[in-house]
Amino acid sequence: MKKKIRISIAGARGYTGQELVSILLRHPAAEIAHLYASEEGAFPFDEEFPAFQGKLSLPIEKWDPEKWNRDEDVLFLALPHGLAMYAAARLLESGVKVIDLSADFRLKDPKVFEKWYHTQHVDLPALEKAVYGLPELHQAEIKEAGFVANPGCYPTSVILPCAPLMTCKEIDGDTLIADSKSGVTGAGRKPSILTHFSEVNENFKAYGVTTHRHTPEIEQELSGVAGRSITVNFTPHLLPVNRGILSTIYVETTKKIPENEWIARIKRFYEKAPFVRVREDGNLPELRHVQGTNYCDIGLKADPRTSRLILVSVIDNLVKGASGQAVHNMNLMFGLKETEGLL
Amino acid sequence: MKKKIRISIAGARGYTGQELVSILLRHPAAEIAHLYASEEGAFPFDEEFPAFQGKLSLPIEKWDPEKWNRDEDVLFLALPHGLAMYAAARLLESGVKVIDLSADFRLKDPKVFEKWYHTQHVDLPALEKAVYGLPELHQAEIKEAGFVANPGCYPTSVILPCAPLMTCKEIDGDTLIADSKSGVTGAGRKPSILTHFSEVNENFKAYGVTTHRHTPEIEQELSGVAGRSITVNFTPHLLPVNRGILSTIYVETTKKIPENEWIARIKRFYEKAPFVRVREDGNLPELRHVQGTNYCDIGLKADPRTSRLILVSVIDNLVKGASGQAVHNMNLMFGLKETEGLL
Amino acid sequence: MKKKIRISIAGARGYTGQELVSILLRHPAAEIAHLYASEEGAFPFDEEFPAFQGKLSLPIEKWDPEKWNRDEDVLFLALPHGLAMYAAARLLESGVKVIDLSADFRLKDPKVFEKWYHTQHVDLPALEKAVYGLPELHQAEIKEAGFVANPGCYPTSVILPCAPLMTCKEIDGDTLIADSKSGVTGAGRKPSILTHFSEVNENFKAYGVTTHRHTPEIEQELSGVAGRSITVNFTPHLLPVNRGILSTIYVETTKKIPENEWIARIKRFYEKAPFVRVREDGNLPELRHVQGTNYCDIGLKADPRTSRLILVSVIDNLVKGASGQAVHNMNLMFGLKETEGLL
Amino acid sequence: MKKKIRISIAGARGYTGQELVSILLRHPAAEIAHLYASEEGAFPFDEEFPAFQGKLSLPIEKWDPEKWNRDEDVLFLALPHGLAMYAAARLLESGVKVIDLSADFRLKDPKVFEKWYHTQHVDLPALEKAVYGLPELHQAEIKEAGFVANPGCYPTSVILPCAPLMTCKEIDGDTLIADSKSGVTGAGRKPSILTHFSEVNENFKAYGVTTHRHTPEIEQELSGVAGRSITVNFTPHLLPVNRGILSTIYVETTKKIPENEWIARIKRFYEKAPFVRVREDGNLPELRHVQGTNYCDIGLKADPRTSRLILVSVIDNLVKGASGQAVHNMNLMFGLKETEGLL
Repeated sequence: MKKKIRISIAGARGYTGQELVSILLRHPAAEIAHLYASEEGAFPFDEEFPAFQGKLSLPIEKWDPEKWNRDEDVLFLALPHGLAMYAAARLLESGVKVIDLSADFRLKDPKVFEKWYHTQHVDLPALEKAVYGLPELHQAEIKEAGFVANPGCYPTSVILPCAPLMTCKEIDGDTLIADSKSGVTGAGRKPSILTHFSEVNENFKAYGVTTHRHTPEIEQELSGVAGRSITVNFTPHLLPVNRGILSTIYVETTKKIPENEWIARIKRFYEKAPFVRVREDGNLPELRHVQGTNYCDIGLKADPRTSRLILVSVIDNLVKGASGQAVHNMNLMFGLKETEGLL
Repeated sequence: MKKKIRISIAGARGYTGQELVSILLRHPAAEIAHLYASEEGAFPFDEEFPAFQGKLSLPIEKWDPEKWNRDEDVLFLALPHGLAMYAAARLLESGVKVIDLSADFRLKDPKVFEKWYHTQHVDLPALEKAVYGLPELHQAEIKEAGFVANPGCYPTSVILPCAPLMTCKEIDGDTLIADSKSGVTGAGRKPSILTHFSEVNENFKAYGVTTHRHTPEIEQELSGVAGRSITVNFTPHLLPVNRGILSTIYVETTKKIPENEWIARIKRFYEKAPFVRVREDGNLPELRHVQGTNYCDIGLKADPRTSRLILVSVIDNLVKGASGQAVHNMNLMFGLKETEGLL
Repeated sequence: MKKKIRISIAGARGYTGQELVSILLRHPAAEIAHLYASEEGAFPFDEEFPAFQGKLSLPIEKWDPEKWNRDEDVLFLALPHGLAMYAAARLLESGVKVIDLSADFRLKDPKVFEKWYHTQHVDLPALEKAVYGLPELHQAEIKEAGFVANPGCYPTSVILPCAPLMTCKEIDGDTLIADSKSGVTGAGRKPSILTHFSEVNENFKAYGVTTHRHTPEIEQELSGVAGRSITVNFTPHLLPVNRGILSTIYVETTKKIPENEWIARIKRFYEKAPFVRVREDGNLPELRHVQGTNYCDIGLKADPRTSRLILVSVIDNLVKGASGQAVHNMNLMFGLKETEGLL
Repeated sequence: MKKKIRISIAGARGYTGQELVSILLRHPAAEIAHLYASEEGAFPFDEEFPAFQGKLSLPIEKWDPEKWNRDEDVLFLALPHGLAMYAAARLLESGVKVIDLSADFRLKDPKVFEKWYHTQHVDLPALEKAVYGLPELHQAEIKEAGFVANPGCYPTSVILPCAPLMTCKEIDGDTLIADSKSGVTGAGRKPSILTHFSEVNENFKAYGVTTHRHTPEIEQELSGVAGRSITVNFTPHLLPVNRGILSTIYVETTKKIPENEWIARIKRFYEKAPFVRVREDGNLPELRHVQGTNYCDIGLKADPRTSRLILVSVIDNLVKGASGQAVHNMNLMFGLKETEGLL
């Protein structure tokens, strides 16, 4: 039997941390080495989280970037934003590969980072090394990477449907509209009045309108594909569901092309991508089609009255939008089959 | 004591019918005369609907446009689309005022009706008489009307935030985008796999993309205000909540005007409208702010990066989007105070 | 016009505080004098809670039992448990009537209080004065009271269906089972992992089994009616809904009596109670029949196979289980019509 | 590679049918041979159910017990109640093993069947052959069986926690109370006003009180373990969640035994049962601990005040309560490892 990959998770108590545990327990090449969190656990993992009873009895160790085991092959950082930036240098010098699920290393331009996050980036050398871990666009670099910045959930849901259109000359204008709706686990597990059941249930709202930090991440990646500067109006909303993001995207066109031809282009673009599924014949995906999976499903309608394309994409924010994509990146970094443990 | 208005409801079992009963029971000038439905009731209303126990024991009479009591002052038609069109002539000749909550008489142009509803309109004289019952735009006509076509729920949520902008010269282009999300009562009470709990709960989806029948209704009213032809991309979505519509609307501008100035214009437009509330300082409304009320709450953000305005409006689809607005129309038609029974 | 009752609410930001505001705004004899909370408001009430925009612009004043206005006729205390106990003496000497929605003054026996709340009661003289504010059982005393302890939500839902049976000689044994299920607003508005949307939504659980503090409150009141000591197994559960409590109650009988006779007895017991509705013919109430209302609806089934009665009761935990019942008490204390502002 | 088991599903469109497909697609020894349903499919399975896009493109064939392929090793019947009874004889003579997920063959006594289902059983010889497929109680018989009656969802959730207590002499009386709460998929996929989203969401209700057909199934199995006649008050309720059953069970005791001793007894009883997990130290399971899994989790509290045990059990009604348990039975019938494809 092949030697398993030894994996640690820093931030094991959060929703992305728990989801990493779930996925890795089913992954044939994975062995969970250590669980870390900001506070040491009084009980083993499966006593604190009884859904895992009998499945993972590791202790939860206190996370300290100075004092950790360093006996793992790869470390997933599922920590709040802003922490990875201070720890990355020391983590990387250990030789352990690092996959960071926070936002700290996603934006390549430190000025853009500063503008949207209102703080200076403190580790430009590490930022230089970090590879943006969207396998559908950066597979070759990820395979060689020792340090991957795992994409945001909303950006994954917007970049994937739009990327194939970015090089089409029949697309007009450089500004897109992405109207996105996310389940509540996307907001993390820390209690707050904003995620109190009775404030979210039977409610719906937009938030972060014009200012959400995922905006420049979408623009960076789409501009990269387009070869020119792309601007986006990104409007996130909070859905009263646990999991899933649906993005409705509006794109202007300059030339009437049949709907099926647009769909065919997207299908060609993702011909070899195992986790992107494109709907045909004007069918559109729904949240429940992808919950609990690593798929991004995409549909498209062309409106002859307004010459706009309306794209709809869905992902599970905790899987393709976070932990599943992180394991996909791990598979690539360790030369495993792309889909290992993820189907 | 003033004589009460005698009111009947055809379609009393549906969600809008039940909501009419709720509102009218609290309305000081209202007396419910008859309840009609497609099938006669085996029990009085409050036995079939125990929420009303002790509040309304009327029988449910079989609805037949040939044989009805005609002893009421006003008849609310809360019937499925397509029925009112065949009955209107006979109803109106009775002298009873009629408020139709279906879609049959909302579109003034029978060609547009035919195109979107895939059926011919069968009563052009009645269509001529029908007044589009959006009190914020057509108050004077409603006051004189004997026949009102009550607006659709989605159109109410899109027309109200957009109308004040339609005459602004700094608005660019004639196509808007309205990305709307509705609770499930908007789909009616008839069982279907589309409204089965387990298909809707924890799910979210777009539907009727580019083809939804509320599109021409929005265009008709906004074109009327603008004095030119307005086109809209209207994308409805199904939210896993009982009540409420939130519309996120994207409008292009040609000139940078401060956000507060846009908000001030909307406030001025609705200065005398008791059921439109405008948020200030970039605050945006949420569904729960209006559920159970007849308000339409509106907020606006101006994005300097893309020169777009993003408007957010919320209504309760059963109240301002249907039964509350119908009672508002009744108040106007009978010379009552606009807000009677609705605050 | 009669002079209005001047009312203040301490704890205006919580769910019961907001519900009090809602009810009192529609109450024809009420005038809200002051809103108090643990922290002063930066904005008027309707800016902090936009659902109230245009309806109540009072500031939120800092609550301090030493320094308050004392110019009101009645003060509702909607504060966390444990605070009223320390403040009651000073509040009562002001001459302002007090209705306390916390648990501090519900248990008449300080030893029972100490046992279940694990703390000593610090104000026995005030405890002596407090009247248990369940209008269906203690109407006469409430009318004379200056200080009312408003019942708990779960106890209201269990005491009302059981009280009429307590004097029936065909009831066997002195222990009941009450299996209760409550919506999340019952847990208050303070953020906690226990009320995080993603921990509650699509979940269901029992909690406080055998130890919940509402147990002795149920026992005190049912023992009072029965004239002997009644014990109860009370098992609360957390429902993923905003509002409402449904209690399923199991009672042993010693003699076969027809189901309808049991129902008739309950109806007779509540003949003059405007807010108790009894279902007939084996119909059982559901949460949605009472949400947003001050009703307690009760149904009963007799099982000939096991000689047990199964009772089902429903209330809205924020209305009949808290704020509506508090206003009912206020109506009684001020000589108003019982149902004023509550139908 | 070992030859795979060829499996067909009759009733592939229902929730249990879809769940069988999901489980079997991940099962290493399974090959789906045919999908049958009451109506032939116009599209392959994964076009009708896009969640399966790219995973299972079989056609949906019309189910006809006279004309079917008979080239499978095992046939799962996920059909509405009442159909299997008429088809069983012909199905069994084909030599194909049959696992019936309906209620038709669960009750061994045809008189009890007739009493609770209000219809005569039409196939007593097949009823004789059918083995009640609860692996924790009937493993040896299931291994030899050609025809298994898969248990009901509620009975699974009540029998498993109670069975270990049935032989304890400290249990008093022969009547239990099981207060159960189920998610909506338990009611099937056929549209009805009872499962309409807006009737279930934010609602909660009891139903079938004293008359639910799962009652005699629970009594049959518990009586079998106890060696005497056990009676149960079973009260089902409808939870506004998609999946899961939580049962709260009340049992009288005659002798005070420490809580931990009761728990230890249950643990011993299920020592070798891979899908029963017992909580310790008074912890109680919640729905989310088992959703999507084949586990039944059990907790217990002993109340010294009333001498009652309160047990709480949770299962996923579509997995341990239906399709997962059916696959567990298949594993046993074909000599596979019990947990194959189910962890």
